[in-house]
Amino acid sequence: MKLNCDMGESFGSWTMGFDAEAMPLVDMANIACGFHASDPLTMARTVELARSHSVQVGAHPGYPDLVGFGRRSIACSPEEAACMLQYQVGALQAIAESRDSRVGYVKPHGALYNDMMRDDRLMRALMEAAKGVCGGLPLMIQATARNAHYQDMAAAVGVELLFEAFADRAYDRDGLLLPRSQAGAVLHDPDAVLEQVRRLAGDGVLLSVDGKPLPLAPDTLCVHGDNEAGIGVLRQIRRLIDET
Amino acid sequence: MKLNCDMGESFGSWTMGFDAEAMPLVDMANIACGFHASDPLTMARTVELARSHSVQVGAHPGYPDLVGFGRRSIACSPEEAACMLQYQVGALQAIAESRDSRVGYVKPHGALYNDMMRDDRLMRALMEAAKGVCGGLPLMIQATARNAHYQDMAAAVGVELLFEAFADRAYDRDGLLLPRSQAGAVLHDPDAVLEQVRRLAGDGVLLSVDGKPLPLAPDTLCVHGDNEAGIGVLRQIRRLIDET
Amino acid sequence: MKLNCDMGESFGSWTMGFDAEAMPLVDMANIACGFHASDPLTMARTVELARSHSVQVGAHPGYPDLVGFGRRSIACSPEEAACMLQYQVGALQAIAESRDSRVGYVKPHGALYNDMMRDDRLMRALMEAAKGVCGGLPLMIQATARNAHYQDMAAAVGVELLFEAFADRAYDRDGLLLPRSQAGAVLHDPDAVLEQVRRLAGDGVLLSVDGKPLPLAPDTLCVHGDNEAGIGVLRQIRRLIDET
Amino acid sequence: MKLNCDMGESFGSWTMGFDAEAMPLVDMANIACGFHASDPLTMARTVELARSHSVQVGAHPGYPDLVGFGRRSIACSPEEAACMLQYQVGALQAIAESRDSRVGYVKPHGALYNDMMRDDRLMRALMEAAKGVCGGLPLMIQATARNAHYQDMAAAVGVELLFEAFADRAYDRDGLLLPRSQAGAVLHDPDAVLEQVRRLAGDGVLLSVDGKPLPLAPDTLCVHGDNEAGIGVLRQIRRLIDET
Repeated sequence: MKLNCDMGESFGSWTMGFDAEAMPLVDMANIACGFHASDPLTMARTVELARSHSVQVGAHPGYPDLVGFGRRSIACSPEEAACMLQYQVGALQAIAESRDSRVGYVKPHGALYNDMMRDDRLMRALMEAAKGVCGGLPLMIQATARNAHYQDMAAAVGVELLFEAFADRAYDRDGLLLPRSQAGAVLHDPDAVLEQVRRLAGDGVLLSVDGKPLPLAPDTLCVHGDNEAGIGVLRQIRRLIDET
Repeated sequence: MKLNCDMGESFGSWTMGFDAEAMPLVDMANIACGFHASDPLTMARTVELARSHSVQVGAHPGYPDLVGFGRRSIACSPEEAACMLQYQVGALQAIAESRDSRVGYVKPHGALYNDMMRDDRLMRALMEAAKGVCGGLPLMIQATARNAHYQDMAAAVGVELLFEAFADRAYDRDGLLLPRSQAGAVLHDPDAVLEQVRRLAGDGVLLSVDGKPLPLAPDTLCVHGDNEAGIGVLRQIRRLIDET
Repeated sequence: MKLNCDMGESFGSWTMGFDAEAMPLVDMANIACGFHASDPLTMARTVELARSHSVQVGAHPGYPDLVGFGRRSIACSPEEAACMLQYQVGALQAIAESRDSRVGYVKPHGALYNDMMRDDRLMRALMEAAKGVCGGLPLMIQATARNAHYQDMAAAVGVELLFEAFADRAYDRDGLLLPRSQAGAVLHDPDAVLEQVRRLAGDGVLLSVDGKPLPLAPDTLCVHGDNEAGIGVLRQIRRLIDET
Repeated sequence: MKLNCDMGESFGSWTMGFDAEAMPLVDMANIACGFHASDPLTMARTVELARSHSVQVGAHPGYPDLVGFGRRSIACSPEEAACMLQYQVGALQAIAESRDSRVGYVKPHGALYNDMMRDDRLMRALMEAAKGVCGGLPLMIQATARNAHYQDMAAAVGVELLFEAFADRAYDRDGLLLPRSQAGAVLHDPDAVLEQVRRLAGDGVLLSVDGKPLPLAPDTLCVHGDNEAGIGVLRQIRRLIDET
């Protein structure tokens, strides 16, 4: 099970994240593409960092909303969203290509990701958009109880899917994330995070907050390297995965 | 001699240019890439329009300055400018690819174009940037008395150049454009424009304002389709070129 | 009954609307403030145009979304929306002040306007924001069957309200606008528009699409000057109002 | 001699500076206005922080260049620059007014500041812009050997000037800052900084790098609170000023 992590979220003079520390610990770097974070120069440097650690480069496109960091839903049409996704993926691909790298997958960011998981019309538009660029790229989406449904959609479109689970989030019994507004939605206790990773890496299951096993069988695990404490946990997750 | 024309310069709800009228009359469409004009949806529609008329698609990247339409020089480093160029070219390429088209060349826009013609460090950075994307793209620059100098630079970088002349601009005896601030810099008389095109298409020379023949031997001629009168002149230029 | 009209919706090199033709025909100019349209220079020129025709200047703040022209809802908090409103109103006020003018009221634009009419928390935040700037400014909102409800809210906040009706929109029997997606939502027939204006100017009532009289008693009528045909209708509305 | 400090330079989710630590130590807060840094919500919070420490609020307008942090010169006309300054000052004033505060002066930021010190046409345009807003605001500029020249310009315009010196920058014998590209341009040694402040606070003179006394007589001293070390030095400067 591969570890994926958001990277390249600095913007101009503003820095965010501990990319230099996190990069050696992950397998896939979801690189912001300038709409919700990052800029051409930051993208170039992040691609180079990923390459130096043999980490796969993924495009992490978002809504055009720097001040809101792509976390505010913007009511745009599926066609607009699809064009915005392709624009951002292509921008990263050009920067990657000229640095002997290439974009390997697409993972939408923030509100765009959440909206896609809620709206099948948007999901289909983004699947088609991912299929249309760079010879066809896998789309990373959230592993849920609806995996089979999305697999059917993807088969019809002809695009590959990557399902991801979250190391540090609590799940309800339908396999959906508890909303951040709810207490316990984010696992702050490193032991709880590691327990969740151990279970996933071992049996491919998560436990819902009320103890129901969720056989989500994710392809990849989303981890974070936002701060020094997070880097510490990430190191333990890496070790755990490597030992499994 | 091919006709190239700036296209896709609308932005969101704002329209600019007569793309539908101009597209059938030209050979190469310099499509704005979202930094000084255009947006992902407009880019998609412009690529489709170009494709429907078998017009070659070129990327037209500019400084990040919508309100200034990319006409204000921004003091950025050659490295920043190179990354911005690749970002924009790649964005257009992704949108083109998914519509059975592809970017065939790069022509910088406005102040970025002018700055490139004045600063060899920037020129070299943009040459390298163009070489690095989409398997290596030709860079379109202004035909001047320094063509040979730029050919040498391009050979060292390993990039192809396309030299362009302007149908409706007056040249000084060094083969440079008269600055727009000077009277007579822009040829408003359709007959004068057509005379300039006829001479170029026939002998490959331009006349400077004081009558000196300028053997610029351009590969392509820049034309405009900004308004109805311009479309009329463009129609005559097309006919003239086709008959030559 | 005063006529209000959106103005100053050009942006940089892109022009929109027929401000020069419309300005002499209206009483209140809702001037865009740079978030969904306009820029500092355009704002300055629009203020000067309004002043030269003794038209009252109003601020027309929107969501930060140039490419979407402020018509796409952005999920931001009431506090963010309030700060964005004040930012834009103050920006226009400074430009107006230095040109011997002043902002006299606030009318939110597009999706911000619609969201405000649907969400009382947002409405209250914008009321408080309008009260806090320029010594307290009236807020222009849509006249509906809920006028009394909004009057109560406004009284609690201590802000003045201006209710507006639309000359060219069809109303349902609850006094709400028919959504644009519905056939007949926009009155395209000049005679229908003028009939609606005549009724409003005469008795202060609108008729719903199914013939129910709606006693909305608006303070002001929203008109448009987007194109030449619109200017023709606007001239007739002006004459009709002046004669009433 | 008052201490002024750039504040409110965070942007959306990105934080910059140690405002909470620096604010109690200074007299004047130059608050970014959204063009090169900050956003409406950050501006509101920074105004509230300044108010809670009885620090005077100043507007810190810059070029519209978030990714370049306003440090890249943008070739715009004096009229455009003047309108941009007023736009930003007004935006901050509205946010301040609604929080029982007010803008007390204007200090241009970064490249706009540098361009103003090099170009008298731009300087005059910004003087006039500052005079036109909020009933007329003082403009803060760099104390140099040309103070008298600027005083004459300001008198003609009818605007007040505030001259500032820099605690941590080296001066050449003409009273200009050594360019940052030159070694020794920025004083990194806290003792050297404190020595410079002591001399200024005592005799109102600076020493140029080659030892020439520069009687610049600044009204205010620009200090920085960018990081923890900087806050330590700032504390010592505060003490030194208070004891003088």
